[in-house]
Amino acid sequence: MRKYPRVIILGAGFGGMQTAQSLSRKSAEVLLIDRNNYNLFIPLLYQVATAQIEPEMIAYPIRTILGRATNTRFLMAEVKHIDFTHQVVEVNNAVIPYDYLVMATGSQTKFLGVLGAAENAFPLKTLAQAVRLRNHIFHCLEQAIWENDPIQRQQLLTFVIVGGGATGVEIAGALVDLKQTLKKDYFDIELKEIQIILVQSRKTILTELPESLGRYTTRKLSQLGVKVYLEARVSRVTQSAVEFLDGSSLATATVIWVAGLEASLPKTDVKSQIAHKNKLMVQPTLQLNEYANVYAIGDLAYFQDKRKPLSGVAPEALQQGVAVSRNISRQIQGKAPKPFKYFNKGRLAIIGCYAGVGKIGPFLLTGFLPWLMWLSVHLVYLPGLRNRLQVLLNWLHRYGLRTRAVRLILFSSVATCDLKKILDRLSNFT
Amino acid sequence: MRKYPRVIILGAGFGGMQTAQSLSRKSAEVLLIDRNNYNLFIPLLYQVATAQIEPEMIAYPIRTILGRATNTRFLMAEVKHIDFTHQVVEVNNAVIPYDYLVMATGSQTKFLGVLGAAENAFPLKTLAQAVRLRNHIFHCLEQAIWENDPIQRQQLLTFVIVGGGATGVEIAGALVDLKQTLKKDYFDIELKEIQIILVQSRKTILTELPESLGRYTTRKLSQLGVKVYLEARVSRVTQSAVEFLDGSSLATATVIWVAGLEASLPKTDVKSQIAHKNKLMVQPTLQLNEYANVYAIGDLAYFQDKRKPLSGVAPEALQQGVAVSRNISRQIQGKAPKPFKYFNKGRLAIIGCYAGVGKIGPFLLTGFLPWLMWLSVHLVYLPGLRNRLQVLLNWLHRYGLRTRAVRLILFSSVATCDLKKILDRLSNFT
Repeated sequence: MRKYPRVIILGAGFGGMQTAQSLSRKSAEVLLIDRNNYNLFIPLLYQVATAQIEPEMIAYPIRTILGRATNTRFLMAEVKHIDFTHQVVEVNNAVIPYDYLVMATGSQTKFLGVLGAAENAFPLKTLAQAVRLRNHIFHCLEQAIWENDPIQRQQLLTFVIVGGGATGVEIAGALVDLKQTLKKDYFDIELKEIQIILVQSRKTILTELPESLGRYTTRKLSQLGVKVYLEARVSRVTQSAVEFLDGSSLATATVIWVAGLEASLPKTDVKSQIAHKNKLMVQPTLQLNEYANVYAIGDLAYFQDKRKPLSGVAPEALQQGVAVSRNISRQIQGKAPKPFKYFNKGRLAIIGCYAGVGKIGPFLLTGFLPWLMWLSVHLVYLPGLRNRLQVLLNWLHRYGLRTRAVRLILFSSVATCDLKKILDRLSNFT
Repeated sequence: MRKYPRVIILGAGFGGMQTAQSLSRKSAEVLLIDRNNYNLFIPLLYQVATAQIEPEMIAYPIRTILGRATNTRFLMAEVKHIDFTHQVVEVNNAVIPYDYLVMATGSQTKFLGVLGAAENAFPLKTLAQAVRLRNHIFHCLEQAIWENDPIQRQQLLTFVIVGGGATGVEIAGALVDLKQTLKKDYFDIELKEIQIILVQSRKTILTELPESLGRYTTRKLSQLGVKVYLEARVSRVTQSAVEFLDGSSLATATVIWVAGLEASLPKTDVKSQIAHKNKLMVQPTLQLNEYANVYAIGDLAYFQDKRKPLSGVAPEALQQGVAVSRNISRQIQGKAPKPFKYFNKGRLAIIGCYAGVGKIGPFLLTGFLPWLMWLSVHLVYLPGLRNRLQVLLNWLHRYGLRTRAVRLILFSSVATCDLKKILDRLSNFT
């Protein structure tokens, strides 16, 4: 009945979006489904959370990216269930059949069973979470400035980041950056009162990169005033503290959780194919083991490159998107799909304050060069000319004028801090 | 005990912010209180709601505006109660005494007793409301594109604005603007399917301006495809329709309510001084009738200029802020406060699509000139260089490239439209 075979793509992240774009000139009818109407540029999410750039700058309308592709439709909906046997995807109250399915629903925060983490820690995977964290940080500052009790004050001004991967390092550096711009606005807060603590369960941070880069990053962060706790395991998070497995604890109103991720697997009736961290086992062609017309890519797929699983960065998902589009095209033409090969261009991580680290081929980089490279690469890959200009404007503003652009508490209720001490502080007025 | 008399300012809108800035070099201790940590540039709020600019662009941190004023402190809190007799302001659980009080808490939406309006209509007075309306508009489009039922579809694509003042006209024009940029993204929706209806209870629109300008605006809006309903009174708003006093009704999922405002009066024990629309009666010096050390300004004050009450625009509040600062200063020096005189520089209103109207002195303006003047004036008055650049960038993008910058559905749950018809529409695919 249909003129062309139908490809349904679930998820408009790096992988799903790339698949849709690569399929735009193929002989297929494409339906892209996502719960949001925008593609989110997750690598810059931490900059939204730390008030360096605005939420709208890293979100780009899916319909605009799809542009003039006449074979592609977009549906904003939540996927309820997938039935591989009958080849249908269930959304809201519609059941949509597919000929080929591309699963690219990404990953979500995993709290690793830590007590209170889900309720009290701040994850960072969505735009709403980034804005919530930004609001919370500025709420803490607005409360601390009127707080006389030294313990309460310290609690409000201590920021704990759990997770020593790239995101944890980025947030730590960005908070140092933020701290340096606060003096002008919060002159009643001493900079030394603001504590930034990075908690890592392993022996080194940035374990995806060579150990020497992790050690460099630890040293650099320490120089910037960040306390790095290595081999420290969090046992509990409350509204006012974080507790460790060794019995120690830290008073803090802010625990940022970037320690664990697991695949966001939509509901299906299949159980056997699940690998580590809820990921779907895939063949070298990115097809599911049991269904030749179903592909999984990005954070959802468990794929080994040179005997090591892929690490969950954007270039992997982008390259897989291109490969899946080619393989589906081959299947439609009656040819066999080809195995996916990941071409690793290297890896960069930004620390902030003009420092970064990176590994390009055999070369290890530290300092200003990888910092600048990181910013350039992310600016180039950010979708949308206007967004790119605005992010650049913000960065120039930040690094040129050394002031902070955004620092608003938006869409959030008023602080309910204990203001008993306002009178004391007011009488200490100049 | 205190070195200088303490002035408490309630509200950091145009009036309160200006008062604080004018008092920054005076011999007074100033405490500015607001529930948000930013000053909101309300005249551009409708552009946020219609996806022309981003929320952060019209919000500016209060602490940054206060800058280096060493006699001024900012407190982010909600005012619970004012006790004029004991001269104290109650916030959260603190009670703060004042020597002088400036009330500048502005206005809020008034639903005029219309059934269902508070629950189902979209007001537009806060940044959160603007983003909520923007989300809703794009939700409607995302639903409509998959909707086959012509009645449901019409309901989703009909936008009704209640209130024919400047804001109502601005929104109508902005929605026409928006409609023209949608074709590229929503090619399954015909532009003629999108209906924009402006409902006004009086005989003409823009009643603050000379009648001829109101008539010009009505004609201009009609040319742009907006239906203007004059002398129409809304009796009820539901989730799917708006009903009129004459018994007629319109199917619509979107009723934007800009028909009524009343003063946002904090709780006090005083009742006698309330005038029209909950406003506080003030003397020519802007002091309350009964308390010589309490001032009210902006939308909160009922002040007559040439026997007509002020109309509630920003220049009035700004000039009153300067006057109150001068009067408090005079009182501190033991001199008598002086009467406030409003200097009316003129009035502009923007229609959109390169047209506006205005009255500068005796001159009435229509068309391109007042449109350009409106944009220029608002750009100049917008606080913050970065915000000004970004808004300019967005406008150039919009009018230069004729595409829409922002069109995201942020921080909002997924559309729960009835998607039964998805299959039908998919089979109509190219």
